Amino acid sequence: MSMPPATLPVPAPAARSRPAAARLAESARTVPAMAGFEQTLEEARLRVRTLTETVPLDRLDRWHYDEGTGFIAHESGRFFSVEGLQTEAQGPSAGWGQPILNQPETGILGFLVKEIDGILHFLAQLKAEPGNRNGLQLSPTVQATRSNYTGIHGGRRVPYLEFFQDPERREVIADVRQSEQGTWFLRKRNRNMVVETTEPVGTRDGFVWLTLGQLHRLLATEDLVNMDARSVLACLPLGDGAASSPGDAGFTAGLTRSLAPGGPALHPPTDVLSWITEARTQCETRVRTVPLHALADWEFTEGRISHRSGRHFDVIGVRVRARGREVAEWCQPMIRARAEGLLALLVTQVHGVLHVLMQVRAEPGLVDAVELAPTVQCTPDDFARLPPEEQPLFLGPVQNARAGDIRFDTALSDEGGRFHHTGSRHLVVETDWLPEPPGFRWLTLGQLEELAQHSHYLNMQARSALTCLRSLIFAGS
Amino acid sequence: MSMPPATLPVPAPAARSRPAAARLAESARTVPAMAGFEQTLEEARLRVRTLTETVPLDRLDRWHYDEGTGFIAHESGRFFSVEGLQTEAQGPSAGWGQPILNQPETGILGFLVKEIDGILHFLAQLKAEPGNRNGLQLSPTVQATRSNYTGIHGGRRVPYLEFFQDPERREVIADVRQSEQGTWFLRKRNRNMVVETTEPVGTRDGFVWLTLGQLHRLLATEDLVNMDARSVLACLPLGDGAASSPGDAGFTAGLTRSLAPGGPALHPPTDVLSWITEARTQCETRVRTVPLHALADWEFTEGRISHRSGRHFDVIGVRVRARGREVAEWCQPMIRARAEGLLALLVTQVHGVLHVLMQVRAEPGLVDAVELAPTVQCTPDDFARLPPEEQPLFLGPVQNARAGDIRFDTALSDEGGRFHHTGSRHLVVETDWLPEPPGFRWLTLGQLEELAQHSHYLNMQARSALTCLRSLIFAGS
Repeated sequence: MSMPPATLPVPAPAARSRPAAARLAESARTVPAMAGFEQTLEEARLRVRTLTETVPLDRLDRWHYDEGTGFIAHESGRFFSVEGLQTEAQGPSAGWGQPILNQPETGILGFLVKEIDGILHFLAQLKAEPGNRNGLQLSPTVQATRSNYTGIHGGRRVPYLEFFQDPERREVIADVRQSEQGTWFLRKRNRNMVVETTEPVGTRDGFVWLTLGQLHRLLATEDLVNMDARSVLACLPLGDGAASSPGDAGFTAGLTRSLAPGGPALHPPTDVLSWITEARTQCETRVRTVPLHALADWEFTEGRISHRSGRHFDVIGVRVRARGREVAEWCQPMIRARAEGLLALLVTQVHGVLHVLMQVRAEPGLVDAVELAPTVQCTPDDFARLPPEEQPLFLGPVQNARAGDIRFDTALSDEGGRFHHTGSRHLVVETDWLPEPPGFRWLTLGQLEELAQHSHYLNMQARSALTCLRSLIFAGS
Repeated sequence: MSMPPATLPVPAPAARSRPAAARLAESARTVPAMAGFEQTLEEARLRVRTLTETVPLDRLDRWHYDEGTGFIAHESGRFFSVEGLQTEAQGPSAGWGQPILNQPETGILGFLVKEIDGILHFLAQLKAEPGNRNGLQLSPTVQATRSNYTGIHGGRRVPYLEFFQDPERREVIADVRQSEQGTWFLRKRNRNMVVETTEPVGTRDGFVWLTLGQLHRLLATEDLVNMDARSVLACLPLGDGAASSPGDAGFTAGLTRSLAPGGPALHPPTDVLSWITEARTQCETRVRTVPLHALADWEFTEGRISHRSGRHFDVIGVRVRARGREVAEWCQPMIRARAEGLLALLVTQVHGVLHVLMQVRAEPGLVDAVELAPTVQCTPDDFARLPPEEQPLFLGPVQNARAGDIRFDTALSDEGGRFHHTGSRHLVVETDWLPEPPGFRWLTLGQLEELAQHSHYLNMQARSALTCLRSLIFAGS
């Protein structure tokens, strides 16, 4: 063909000095003493403070109920809106309505990593979000909506954003758009990124370098590692699933020694993908947004929107006064769950290889109908008075698990920028092998790691729980 | 934990006798004489006939323009509707409006395969769709919307559907929901399936067993292998990308002998996924449906909807009389492109390994913003009078390619159930290596095969062109 120049130098295929998985595993096995971090955290707690008070939804500065759309929106038209969602009746199910957050812009959740003394370190931010029940939490280096980083809300530049936006300044370790909670957000995605730089990086106030091993250990502290951090860490190509024996992975105390994290899977990959495809096809439900006042089971009362049953969640208004944050004072709506959630993973060995029991779960706000969820994902209070046969599968067994079978048990928060004092108990429970009910499959860590590289497979709760499970794999130091 | 019984027999990990890739490659290398097929085709052409006449859109039985929505819909509320689509202005681009088909239900496109004399054979259907310009085309075994197979339109049972619906009767080789044309369909997906059975299977009239090699050879016949068949074949885990030398793949005459289909890729997988994530983030455009009469640049004239410029496509009405089809006579709207499309793949070697130049392309009907498209995807007539710098990249070079560099050149149709006499010239052109403009990347067959196992990566045109390229890899017999 006639395209000049006829011959050009062909670039060499990109070569990396050492594969990311091996370096990440090394970082996961490295757990330096935490004294320095504890001190930084204490100092930051004194310096940074966010005061959040509840105010009626109809008295939020710059937010209003739009009579035309029936949504609650910001006067700028940006940030997010609170809308009504109606699902279509399907077969015996009547469909339902609920409030939902619509935030169509895709934000960045990103960890900057860098080798320090030959070990990959993650730059975590100590961040006070208005909904946090305990003040500061550990977040990724960057946690920014597009409104944040284009300056719509009049704030300052987002620190370290340049490493995520400029391909010349980093090498990508993970970069995938992942869903947020499909019951509370309408088709929201965030870009989950981990990028490595070799440039010198200054450490600003409120930021701290931690190994992956340290981050994993901090997961066991209540409400410390925030939801966005857990989400991003789940996308790491950690290679734990590739380790075929406990020794390979540096696998030690977190689970019983007989469980190897990697090895042959019960279900071949083709069958796993087909199972998800089948579930998407079965569960496809049309949803449409409707005015909030058209939601039959929800009422505006005492300055908030609540379900008539008193269950589920409220949409509340808050006024926030922040010290050490971009903008000093603002109002916003938030979601506040009525009770603590429960996210539980059952794990077992299948012929000596660790398998995790996952379920396919339809949520109205998901872009592609269903994603994989933890073994149990629910609000236990909603089912407390129901007989076992009307409770979610495996809820009773994980709540009544013997202490000796519980490998992880920590309460961790939902994202404090949108959720007020809302979180879930995260459980990892070892069990004997159990048959798979419809909608459930035992998958290996390798299979979950592979799926986490793509959008639309692991829901937020699955990623959060998976990060907790992975923290047990490399628990030695 | 207290879940009885304490110990259950753990099933063995599923084992397959021989991996699908090796058996598919063997089928691709096997090309028995076509005389039998030619005769079957001739006989079917005499027996099956579809007469399609154009009628004004406002005179279609059972279809009407709904004043409330501004859409054209069927009186049953099923099948599909013709709606207006408006994209949001973004930066310098003003946004645009166009008609679009909305068919929210996910259909099945599926090939049933079976070993005959030790070789995998595909059961193809000779199908007369109303929009076909040449009567019969080769389609997958099953090509059914949900309306088809739930009997909404009063037709008969869909033959062989049971193998796709009953997991006990087949083993899955491929099963993935894939997009349809994002410029003509609003968020439409079909389930692309290939399933193998070991049961005896009767061969009904109008069906024929072909090896993958025969199907590949028939691709070179104008308008014979239909769009749905090309889409499904692209999802096969063929393993051509795993072959690291020409000999491994049985690779012969289709491309120059120096090109091995498999081997190291120019771009590591992490970088490819990050490139797609970046494009999705950049190209996200909000779209909303609007009444057809609100589309400023489109007019209803002479019984059809046309663009005022005379370019792009028309929405027309047709009356169909079919012999040998489920229902004898019906009316429907169809899309008719104003001119033939062009889908071209540039291929080259990078250090001896075959690479294909793909582009990221935003289309308003896609579920996740962008997918990969062929090197060139356009309607050349739209650009014929424009200077080269205003034409799509690589259009001139592929149109003016030397005959000796053209490896594949066949006109193939869009799906005849929705598109009237509409199709694209499919080209595969070898070139020297060229630098990648923004939005373009050289990928290996192995990388494309991996992406094809998941939704949201390869658009319909990419899958169609990729199947043509793959037909060259195993071209020996």
